[in-house]
Amino acid sequence: MEIWFSELHTDNVKLSVRIDRQIFSGASEYQRIDVFESEEFGKFIALDGAIVFSEKDEFIYDEMVTHVPMAVHPDVKDVLIIGGGDGGVAKELLRYPGIRSIDLVETDRLFVKVCKEIFPRLSAGLKDERVRVYYDDGLRFLRSKCEVYDLIINDSTDPFGYTEGLFTKEFYGSCYKALRKDGIMVYQHGSPFYSEDEMACRSMHRKAYRSFPISRVYQAHIPTCASGYWLFGFASKKYHPVTDFKPEKWNRLEIDTKYYTTNLHMGAFMLPRYVEALLEEEEERI
Amino acid sequence: MEIWFSELHTDNVKLSVRIDRQIFSGASEYQRIDVFESEEFGKFIALDGAIVFSEKDEFIYDEMVTHVPMAVHPDVKDVLIIGGGDGGVAKELLRYPGIRSIDLVETDRLFVKVCKEIFPRLSAGLKDERVRVYYDDGLRFLRSKCEVYDLIINDSTDPFGYTEGLFTKEFYGSCYKALRKDGIMVYQHGSPFYSEDEMACRSMHRKAYRSFPISRVYQAHIPTCASGYWLFGFASKKYHPVTDFKPEKWNRLEIDTKYYTTNLHMGAFMLPRYVEALLEEEEERI
Repeated sequence: MEIWFSELHTDNVKLSVRIDRQIFSGASEYQRIDVFESEEFGKFIALDGAIVFSEKDEFIYDEMVTHVPMAVHPDVKDVLIIGGGDGGVAKELLRYPGIRSIDLVETDRLFVKVCKEIFPRLSAGLKDERVRVYYDDGLRFLRSKCEVYDLIINDSTDPFGYTEGLFTKEFYGSCYKALRKDGIMVYQHGSPFYSEDEMACRSMHRKAYRSFPISRVYQAHIPTCASGYWLFGFASKKYHPVTDFKPEKWNRLEIDTKYYTTNLHMGAFMLPRYVEALLEEEEERI
Repeated sequence: MEIWFSELHTDNVKLSVRIDRQIFSGASEYQRIDVFESEEFGKFIALDGAIVFSEKDEFIYDEMVTHVPMAVHPDVKDVLIIGGGDGGVAKELLRYPGIRSIDLVETDRLFVKVCKEIFPRLSAGLKDERVRVYYDDGLRFLRSKCEVYDLIINDSTDPFGYTEGLFTKEFYGSCYKALRKDGIMVYQHGSPFYSEDEMACRSMHRKAYRSFPISRVYQAHIPTCASGYWLFGFASKKYHPVTDFKPEKWNRLEIDTKYYTTNLHMGAFMLPRYVEALLEEEEERI
């Protein structure tokens, strides 16, 4: 018997993973949630049919959204994670002794419950006394916040469906307001390779570039993402991700990683020409 | 009607591309050759079922094996391409006015013939008077050569089947001998992500590291490759790919690219921690 999970990365390309069995299938009021066990990626979770993370490659995503801003900002104390109900990003953040509080706003209670049961290593972070989980809409939660966070990590999935509000101009403006005077926001920037993803990628850069004085894009290789290539946005009020980056200080923390290094930090901002070109085109429109 | 081409990247992961139609199917004495037309990747060619290149992403591979060594070596005149019968690498090389001769050794005449008919833009380079095509086994061709090339690009496919000889210790030794005193060799290093590819990757690094005084690995994102992530080896007698790199000189050539930039050149050598770790492990074994 063969069972294959397939995800359409575009209408014309799909990635398939052979699975041993389906561990969970259910639906919340927001989305369908499925968890599978596989030889190649270990356990992985799909929301509305799209892989959100797998045991084998979550380290890439979780490390890249956490360590890049943490190695730039000199003193992060209070963090907001939007989405991230699996706990993976919180787990990475909690490795820093300077972290005072993490607010995590997740819309879907069932997603958190399923992750707690099936991915306890990731979810362990949510139990830490520095972490407060709010079940709310990210944009609504943000509206009342003013200069209270040093770092916001937007770990929500896609600019479609119920998370759509997290990719609007208002959202970037609300993040700006919620950040302290030297705050940083990091967000998923999608994949630039396939034409249908390129449009979302352009639109995100326009909004962040308009809202923040510093707006740069960095990259990582994530096998389960569309084309294996993923971008992240680094939007900042004061610190530049490369010129204000302090590698020696970060290295002294002796945080053990599998993907991030201070060398890779620099390299992650060195983008292919076709990506630079599409970002520059959007900057020129403003 | 739907037609899907699928390639197993491991026994447990496959990438599928929706195709409009099959343009060619045939077999030489070495391999099965298929060409397809697709919406997402344009025309693409598969050898024994594995995608070798597509119209939409060949620029990444062809630019990365060419411009990286060309921006390091100060005076490349004579080049050997092993494999590369599609002409893509020759096409990139011919953009440099300093190139005097390109020897291209391809085993499979049918592969060259098919590429000439179906991918004339890539194959155009093979008609240039500076290019000589030899139909021979790469290793056999190399054995008689001594200090005659400035650059060798090993563009052959996989360390399996009839190209297996191009991944042996003898092969790296023969390349060393065929290169001038300051010569550079660039080769495909495979993908490090999936366990079954990791072994081939380790073995290649061991051989190159033993054979050349300088041996570094660099990376690119190629959507049709296993996990979308591909490594290249840079083995060199004299020049270091980062410390001897001359970005200003390369930029003055004003070569228009879609992937390579002199910034990206630096970033391509900044590898994820798990890749650094596996390369270092092999270096320590020697």
